[in-house]
Amino acid sequence: VSVARSRDLAASAQRAVDEKTKPLGSLGDLEAWAIRLACIQRTLTPRIDRARVLVFAADHGVAAEGVSAYPAQVTTEMMRNFARGGAAINVLSRANDIDVEVIDVGVDADLADLPGITHAKVRRGSRNLRHEPAMTTEECDAAIEVGRAVARRAAADGVRAIGLGEMGIANTTAAAALLSALASAHPDATVGRGTGIDDARLVHKRAVVAAALARHAANVTDPAAPRAALTSLGGLELAAIAGAALEAPAHGIAVVADGFISSVAVLAALRIEPAIAGHIFVAHESAEAGHGVAIDALGARPMLRLGLRLGEGTGAALAIPLLRSAAVMLSEMATFADAGVSRES
Amino acid sequence: VSVARSRDLAASAQRAVDEKTKPLGSLGDLEAWAIRLACIQRTLTPRIDRARVLVFAADHGVAAEGVSAYPAQVTTEMMRNFARGGAAINVLSRANDIDVEVIDVGVDADLADLPGITHAKVRRGSRNLRHEPAMTTEECDAAIEVGRAVARRAAADGVRAIGLGEMGIANTTAAAALLSALASAHPDATVGRGTGIDDARLVHKRAVVAAALARHAANVTDPAAPRAALTSLGGLELAAIAGAALEAPAHGIAVVADGFISSVAVLAALRIEPAIAGHIFVAHESAEAGHGVAIDALGARPMLRLGLRLGEGTGAALAIPLLRSAAVMLSEMATFADAGVSRES
Repeated sequence: VSVARSRDLAASAQRAVDEKTKPLGSLGDLEAWAIRLACIQRTLTPRIDRARVLVFAADHGVAAEGVSAYPAQVTTEMMRNFARGGAAINVLSRANDIDVEVIDVGVDADLADLPGITHAKVRRGSRNLRHEPAMTTEECDAAIEVGRAVARRAAADGVRAIGLGEMGIANTTAAAALLSALASAHPDATVGRGTGIDDARLVHKRAVVAAALARHAANVTDPAAPRAALTSLGGLELAAIAGAALEAPAHGIAVVADGFISSVAVLAALRIEPAIAGHIFVAHESAEAGHGVAIDALGARPMLRLGLRLGEGTGAALAIPLLRSAAVMLSEMATFADAGVSRES
Repeated sequence: VSVARSRDLAASAQRAVDEKTKPLGSLGDLEAWAIRLACIQRTLTPRIDRARVLVFAADHGVAAEGVSAYPAQVTTEMMRNFARGGAAINVLSRANDIDVEVIDVGVDADLADLPGITHAKVRRGSRNLRHEPAMTTEECDAAIEVGRAVARRAAADGVRAIGLGEMGIANTTAAAALLSALASAHPDATVGRGTGIDDARLVHKRAVVAAALARHAANVTDPAAPRAALTSLGGLELAAIAGAALEAPAHGIAVVADGFISSVAVLAALRIEPAIAGHIFVAHESAEAGHGVAIDALGARPMLRLGLRLGEGTGAALAIPLLRSAAVMLSEMATFADAGVSRES
């Protein structure tokens, strides 16, 4: 689709919004979102009848550095919690009429018998990025393809918005390192408390990220090579999120980044393919320290500010109803002419 | 219910939230809302299975002063739009599984034949508050009782949260005057552009509000007499909103104020009955100039900031899903013990 046609559609959608029975501009952000959804779906009657949160899960070799408040087996334990429907993302998605798909792209456990999740394990956890690349190029490509395949399936199922969530103990460490590389940001600005580490562990976590950046400096500082940064400093779920964000736009699906980790992975996708920018929404600004850096690098404005810092896609599950609302506003509201309502005098 | 029992319940709800499979505090505002809903519903398993936006509509004598960008007949035209389901509040409520009830408490037209709305007209519009009290004491009491009756019916229908919306050309003028009286705020801080008036009309609108405040100064400046301010400076839909906000708490219903007009009416209710404070949520901070003054006077923190300035309860329709989400988080999420998930190490 050409840029010119896109501009025409945006202008038509703006005119359609302005014909609705309300003062001009009075639905604020909802109007801008509706216009973006019109462009994404190539229609003046966008809909988000079906939405899905994708929870990509993986373990991280860097957990061995003691960077998290929780033991690494929590990733596996949470997979069982997701499968039983008891986690935050399960209940919030149910409450908001959103599907949840949990994908094992790299959990360090044999979950083959666990029902209700998608089995797409590339490797049992990434390597310790403090000392070696988190993934090989092949592993990273395979994880990206997992995300692409999940997005294609969502498209086939009629999904019009995907929320990108994650689970993986120590993944704020990987995301901070990756963000530092992608945004040329100091670890002091990208490393936060994650699940809630204390001051001493925060200092240690920053040192681990700084050491990793130094270790991989030769590979990760070329802004034209975001895949190299993702491979060396990312993780299997981060690569899969990037894959889903890269694939969804081709199917007219809106991409809703969640919190810190999700936003960093989507940033990697955006650096790989800048043309996806118009499809990206950031659900919320989280309480995790580096999220603002990632949001700025995405050039986005968060939809919500609720002080969340859980991940799993929870913020996306809360933001998707706002996108759905924006779509129905454009698709279903009466115009001044339809309704016989007088305009400004 | 005693304050001590309320504190016990809040503490129990906080403990229950802290047992959920997530890092402590990681669901941010959702956690605080869940605890408040537990206290409102007197249970550790709150639910908002059913919610309803109430759109109270009335005309205003002060419209004759030329304070709005829209002609007064728009109130009536919008009633027909509501009845057909084409207005913003209709489509946003449908999209979010929320009932809508539109109540004619004082529209200046004979709508007796209009189906799908609640007919409870106290008077065909309030008087021109620039020159005389907007209502008599009896009319104001009758409008408050309309709101109370609607809230009682909502309780009987199993509604657990009400959004308080409104429609009434010129009602930002009445709300600004009432807010100035209730919060001892200068008209420069309370008068805004409403549906979108230009600079010249804004100056005029401020002068109208200042003149009204001078005209009624003897009645409206006693902070112990908020009903007098509501009677002299309010409007029929403002009084009805106050009535609904006064009644709902006794039925364990959360009260969700919408934008500027709604928040000012809820502030009047709060001044009449300070004990309802714990039941009040403010859906959003609108783009209307005086809303911040009203929110501060309510001692509230808005749930959303979307730049809305439409009214009708549209912000409440967007915020109620967040309250519903908070409730299910507390009611349905697994605990660490249930799920066999390890805690912080």
